[in-house]
Amino acid sequence: MIRKARLYTPGPTPLLPAAQFAMAAADIHHRTPEFRAIFQKVLAQLKVFIGTKNDVLLLSSSGTGAMEASLANLTSPGDKVLVLTAGKFGERWTGLAKAFNLEPEVLSFPYGETFDLAQVKAALKPEHKAILLQATETSTAVRHDVEAIAKLRDEVAPKTLLVVDGITGLGTTHFDVDGWGIDVIIGGSQKAVMIPPGLAYLSVSERAWAAMETAKNPRYYFDLRKERKSAAKGETAYTPAVALIAGLGAALDYIAGQAGGDLERGRIALIDNAQVNAEATRAGLVALGFALFAPTAPAAAVTAVKVPEGMDSGDVVKALKTRFSIVPANGQGEMKGKIFRLAHLGFFDYLDTIALLGAMEHVAKETLGLPVQWGQAVAAAQEVFAKTASRV
Amino acid sequence: MIRKARLYTPGPTPLLPAAQFAMAAADIHHRTPEFRAIFQKVLAQLKVFIGTKNDVLLLSSSGTGAMEASLANLTSPGDKVLVLTAGKFGERWTGLAKAFNLEPEVLSFPYGETFDLAQVKAALKPEHKAILLQATETSTAVRHDVEAIAKLRDEVAPKTLLVVDGITGLGTTHFDVDGWGIDVIIGGSQKAVMIPPGLAYLSVSERAWAAMETAKNPRYYFDLRKERKSAAKGETAYTPAVALIAGLGAALDYIAGQAGGDLERGRIALIDNAQVNAEATRAGLVALGFALFAPTAPAAAVTAVKVPEGMDSGDVVKALKTRFSIVPANGQGEMKGKIFRLAHLGFFDYLDTIALLGAMEHVAKETLGLPVQWGQAVAAAQEVFAKTASRV
Repeated sequence: MIRKARLYTPGPTPLLPAAQFAMAAADIHHRTPEFRAIFQKVLAQLKVFIGTKNDVLLLSSSGTGAMEASLANLTSPGDKVLVLTAGKFGERWTGLAKAFNLEPEVLSFPYGETFDLAQVKAALKPEHKAILLQATETSTAVRHDVEAIAKLRDEVAPKTLLVVDGITGLGTTHFDVDGWGIDVIIGGSQKAVMIPPGLAYLSVSERAWAAMETAKNPRYYFDLRKERKSAAKGETAYTPAVALIAGLGAALDYIAGQAGGDLERGRIALIDNAQVNAEATRAGLVALGFALFAPTAPAAAVTAVKVPEGMDSGDVVKALKTRFSIVPANGQGEMKGKIFRLAHLGFFDYLDTIALLGAMEHVAKETLGLPVQWGQAVAAAQEVFAKTASRV
Repeated sequence: MIRKARLYTPGPTPLLPAAQFAMAAADIHHRTPEFRAIFQKVLAQLKVFIGTKNDVLLLSSSGTGAMEASLANLTSPGDKVLVLTAGKFGERWTGLAKAFNLEPEVLSFPYGETFDLAQVKAALKPEHKAILLQATETSTAVRHDVEAIAKLRDEVAPKTLLVVDGITGLGTTHFDVDGWGIDVIIGGSQKAVMIPPGLAYLSVSERAWAAMETAKNPRYYFDLRKERKSAAKGETAYTPAVALIAGLGAALDYIAGQAGGDLERGRIALIDNAQVNAEATRAGLVALGFALFAPTAPAAAVTAVKVPEGMDSGDVVKALKTRFSIVPANGQGEMKGKIFRLAHLGFFDYLDTIALLGAMEHVAKETLGLPVQWGQAVAAAQEVFAKTASRV
């Protein structure tokens, strides 16, 4: 039987064919007018995609590179930062803060939950150089409330920088970056923008630029001031991942094209798309008898699903792969074996959700031995789609 | 919302990405050792794909070009041929026979039905130079019984050539080309072999080669003897569609790769794949309340579905396209508006069938106003898959 390769991982996500072809065609040198034209176009598109008037920079690195860049450029050894964490990626902020000799105050919440705002308010102090958090905690499929954190910052510590890992949040959640005062928000190429890993992008506020002037931490490859200067000339400081940048341009063109060429509306449609597919997937899986790992604040980027007590989520991962060529994500760290994760961010459509749930019914019934009435997960998703399709 | 482009037409069919990339990479000249190596490999693969020891040739044309080639090379003006027809493609044989000044005896059966073997037996005479038929009548989604026709030929008119349009039959039906004595069988690139239109291929028996020596009809571009001579040197008589040939090689590699590199087993798996998906699709559509246009001899290549009296199949075609970016085929000729057609040949998998049926439930309920319980078509397909998946 034919089994098409179908990624449902929250990065890498399925590639947009038009971006693949643009990447294949990108046989150009990076110190030429041809590249400068592409690069400047992509930077301008990214501003719209992020929804900001701040500078946007591209780095040839993974998203973690941009997380490092934000700390290396904004902080000095000994600076206090507040880390809000409820998962593996929150913990990455702590690791980075330690690596750059900061003094992280870590406010941890259980995996599967979001932040308690009263506790955040109590922990936040004006002496914090920055608040570090995720918009979406990919490891637990939780959406954090960036707007609420931004308001607490304004209230309690208005000079503290707000640094947001939006790697799976961008393209799946609506942000008012400038209105809320997000100083840095970070995205990655292998997420909602439908291309392979290798690029990170971030927006940088004027306050963040000012903070860099006194920041003492070491940076060279990730020196954002140098990148800003180069970007003004349509260039990158170091050799960029040219093909990925060309692919990113094609993907942003596609996202705009979904809304008649209007990238802002295209971004909103992409977010709605992820949200509807996430809602339909959750409804289908709950109808199948699965419990959600993060029921109270579910992300639109990815859904985390618990397997029944005594079962191994690795069996679901394996069955989806061997029987249907579907690649889901297992749990990470201590969640491995307990949950599996299914993505909705980027190049997924409703029929991908239907196909996934059809396969999940087979796995639930034939692999896990759960009682399944054929079509029951699909039906729950169709119910969601029938109600929401009119608004998207 | 994202809506992925999804072809469900019985040609062109969905492209295999590996073939797309091979086509993009095929920047070679056709009178070089590089091309000869590809061409000879593809011809050898096509023999296995057709399942014959006869010569196999490739033509840079559509399948109709190879239909013309078979008549132009095998017949002389005034020759009598028996055309078996039950649809638009059967009628094409009649048109071709007239264009080449043959005397076609046309045995017609109603659209949606296959041939009555007793009538074929009564009509067939040793004076017929050839029997012309389709293995699958794509316009009606009917499978004809080539083996039975071959046996009648052996019995009644053993010298009559058997010329089979297998354009949608190859890769969806098991043939014993040499055992049954099929003199010519024709395939097209945009069908089960997963690449774009532009190539036809055909196998030619020794009896057919012998017949060409006395055939008087004019041929130049489609002169098969010239192609055979060129092929022996690893070349084509005229400029070939190089990229398509490279893509075809990649597709045949993929089909072999689905069975551990064994193309014969890969071909069988591909046929089983189409048959299971066709059966699951039929079950789903019948469960939704639709009637099949060809219930008695349904093809695995494509399914033809009637819309209820008073409705227009064009509305289904339009709704699938606008709401789900699914491209089905409308009926052709007098069947337009009455039926729509959904393909299974080539690069389709079970999850494509689930997705299609999920979309059809929305169209049936929301566009046609039929009573639909969400999941009912999907459930019927899952039932089929659960029973058959063990054997494929």
